[in-house]
Amino acid sequence: MSELLSVSEATRQLLAHFTPLQSICLPLDQARNQVSAEDIQASFDLPQFTNASMDGFAVRSTDVVAAGEQSPVRLEVVADIPAGRWLQLRLEAGKAARIMTGAPLPDGADAVVPVEGTDVRFRGPGQPAPPSVLIFAPAQAGDNVRRKASDVKAGNLILAKGRRLQPQDLGMLAMFGMRLVAVTRRPRVAVISTGDELQPLDSALQPGKIYDSNNTLLSAQVEKYGGESLCFGVVPDEAATIEAVLDRAVAGGADLIVSSAGVSVGAFDYVRHVVERNGHLQFWRVNMRPGKPLAFGVYRSVPFIGLPGNPVSAFVTFELFVRPALLKMKGIEGDERRIQSVTLVEAVESDGRESYLRAVAREEDGQWIARLTGHQGSGNLFSLVQANALLIIPAGVRALAKGSQAQAWIL
Amino acid sequence: MSELLSVSEATRQLLAHFTPLQSICLPLDQARNQVSAEDIQASFDLPQFTNASMDGFAVRSTDVVAAGEQSPVRLEVVADIPAGRWLQLRLEAGKAARIMTGAPLPDGADAVVPVEGTDVRFRGPGQPAPPSVLIFAPAQAGDNVRRKASDVKAGNLILAKGRRLQPQDLGMLAMFGMRLVAVTRRPRVAVISTGDELQPLDSALQPGKIYDSNNTLLSAQVEKYGGESLCFGVVPDEAATIEAVLDRAVAGGADLIVSSAGVSVGAFDYVRHVVERNGHLQFWRVNMRPGKPLAFGVYRSVPFIGLPGNPVSAFVTFELFVRPALLKMKGIEGDERRIQSVTLVEAVESDGRESYLRAVAREEDGQWIARLTGHQGSGNLFSLVQANALLIIPAGVRALAKGSQAQAWIL
Repeated sequence: MSELLSVSEATRQLLAHFTPLQSICLPLDQARNQVSAEDIQASFDLPQFTNASMDGFAVRSTDVVAAGEQSPVRLEVVADIPAGRWLQLRLEAGKAARIMTGAPLPDGADAVVPVEGTDVRFRGPGQPAPPSVLIFAPAQAGDNVRRKASDVKAGNLILAKGRRLQPQDLGMLAMFGMRLVAVTRRPRVAVISTGDELQPLDSALQPGKIYDSNNTLLSAQVEKYGGESLCFGVVPDEAATIEAVLDRAVAGGADLIVSSAGVSVGAFDYVRHVVERNGHLQFWRVNMRPGKPLAFGVYRSVPFIGLPGNPVSAFVTFELFVRPALLKMKGIEGDERRIQSVTLVEAVESDGRESYLRAVAREEDGQWIARLTGHQGSGNLFSLVQANALLIIPAGVRALAKGSQAQAWIL
Repeated sequence: MSELLSVSEATRQLLAHFTPLQSICLPLDQARNQVSAEDIQASFDLPQFTNASMDGFAVRSTDVVAAGEQSPVRLEVVADIPAGRWLQLRLEAGKAARIMTGAPLPDGADAVVPVEGTDVRFRGPGQPAPPSVLIFAPAQAGDNVRRKASDVKAGNLILAKGRRLQPQDLGMLAMFGMRLVAVTRRPRVAVISTGDELQPLDSALQPGKIYDSNNTLLSAQVEKYGGESLCFGVVPDEAATIEAVLDRAVAGGADLIVSSAGVSVGAFDYVRHVVERNGHLQFWRVNMRPGKPLAFGVYRSVPFIGLPGNPVSAFVTFELFVRPALLKMKGIEGDERRIQSVTLVEAVESDGRESYLRAVAREEDGQWIARLTGHQGSGNLFSLVQANALLIIPAGVRALAKGSQAQAWIL
């Protein structure tokens, strides 16, 4: 097995063929989970103006620094400032202004006394401001005030290029009035299942045949990681047909072609050979389990990843090789994997290849433990459905005793 | 503060108003991340027939049990079985059939010898089966064979009601030829931002006003958790207009109305009062930070959650109260939160309310640590953008020393 490429070397060679795609502008409400294509700076200060952080009365703190329950201070209320109103007003000594959360602090004022610190216990809307107010609580300069630029200064970097946009990020862009954001466009992935034994869904199953599950599986994975899949359905084991479909994928603008099956040593495994005829195969077979017969190359000018046909092998090799290619095309640095150290609650055997075994990992009494889910045959998709993690067994390891530490890749 | 409702009691009261919504049928390629509305049983065995797990030769193991490099056994090749072909064939003693991965094992055969164990090193497609084969490796009954029903038996539960459908689940359904799956329909959530200070995006900002970010933020959160948002834009602080918009939300079939702002003690906080006029308010104010002035009730017959207006308060209260309501309407048991125990690398102060503080949590040298991201003002959305977690400080706790353990809710 020593001649086989390692997973890390295969990944390195494969990723060298991908670069971030062009950017497009999307409205914020379509940009969630897309990836920022550029650094974004604040176009103004946040807050843009000093404002009240509570409902109450804007005051000059020097007027009320000694106020207390036993020594209240009476101030004349000279204005009423709801949020959204900009008053040309300078607060003089001995005066106050009723003010609502978010409203601009008037010149001269430097603090807000919340309603709870006054004799005006308004607890409902529609009540006019009183002519004067008794202040029962002292205030220091800056109390209950949000100062201009205290959150973000104009010109500060607010979102870096390559960031996957979350709701809070989109909210942040909205604070600056942005309606559009530049994101990397979604990679277009041609998904192709090959095999004479495959039947499309909802047809009557013939003896000896199986339904094609890889189109469904792989298209959902493409979408999960932010690509769009161009589906080419089931392709029979015929070189000419496979070639015609690959050519349609190229003509359709695929950024990547992902096939499943047809890349092993079988007498009907034509896919590899069609790729070699119109492009080149950079590597074939990786020292891993499941998924050894993985193929990578370029078909005409489009990167090609040939996954094994068994659904679990297809799933695992997609996660290992297609996913990072998608992320790189989207401009994401790093692989976004969630790796968790776990204690094995049963002995695990391997065959010396780098193995990705279906497992359930969970926290129990503060410790992460993992156990395998049923038999690890590469056709057994049910054991993947039951799993929430892939247990990673490094190359060269053939057995891990119960109680050993291992790494689990949480799915 | 002791009269305030606890977060857990508020959650309990609120969730009692929600039940799972009706189910709809979706094609598999639209069902990712949707939630299964029923238990799904296997409609047939998997594998449906005993088949080869490798490319090679189907044999009777009794013929080759003593085969070896020095004592090869020659078998006549009487058939060639590609995947997808169903042959009426019974393999007699002394005979073999070339067979491809996934092809049905002929009657009489009980093992497959892979090509590597024979003198037929076919490594490419299009080669005819040889007239005979030399077997160099012994085989036991069952070797390289996937037995009928060894993965799933007909009638077995394959996906439980309430499961969030992942790519592997959809692949599993495809294996049974299903084209459609019953999922709970998406909750329709009316999203309303109130406030005279708010301006829509892309308008020229007037003095004293701010852009509305909550519509963008909350709609993205609704979508993230699988709902669809009915957007009503910015609504001014006028009781009649607020009432008209709430009525449009009800008429539009909203399963839930989520507003932000207008629920505090300010002189222009009309939302609560409009809800009370045409429905009832079940609770108002929760012992938490940020987000104390949270309101919950029923407007006409539609559940209403009134979030505070500050964007961080709106975000946190959405995660705490709207999200579990959405999950319950989608039929998900449990809250799908990822909670991580962390060690604080700095002292943290609280005010005795149950607090959700913006923090960065990460694994460092095998230990999870957390630190706060900037100041925790509830208008400071940037400190949420910089965070990846909410640090949970229980009610009654006012200080946690550096080095303390705490719980972080990973966002």
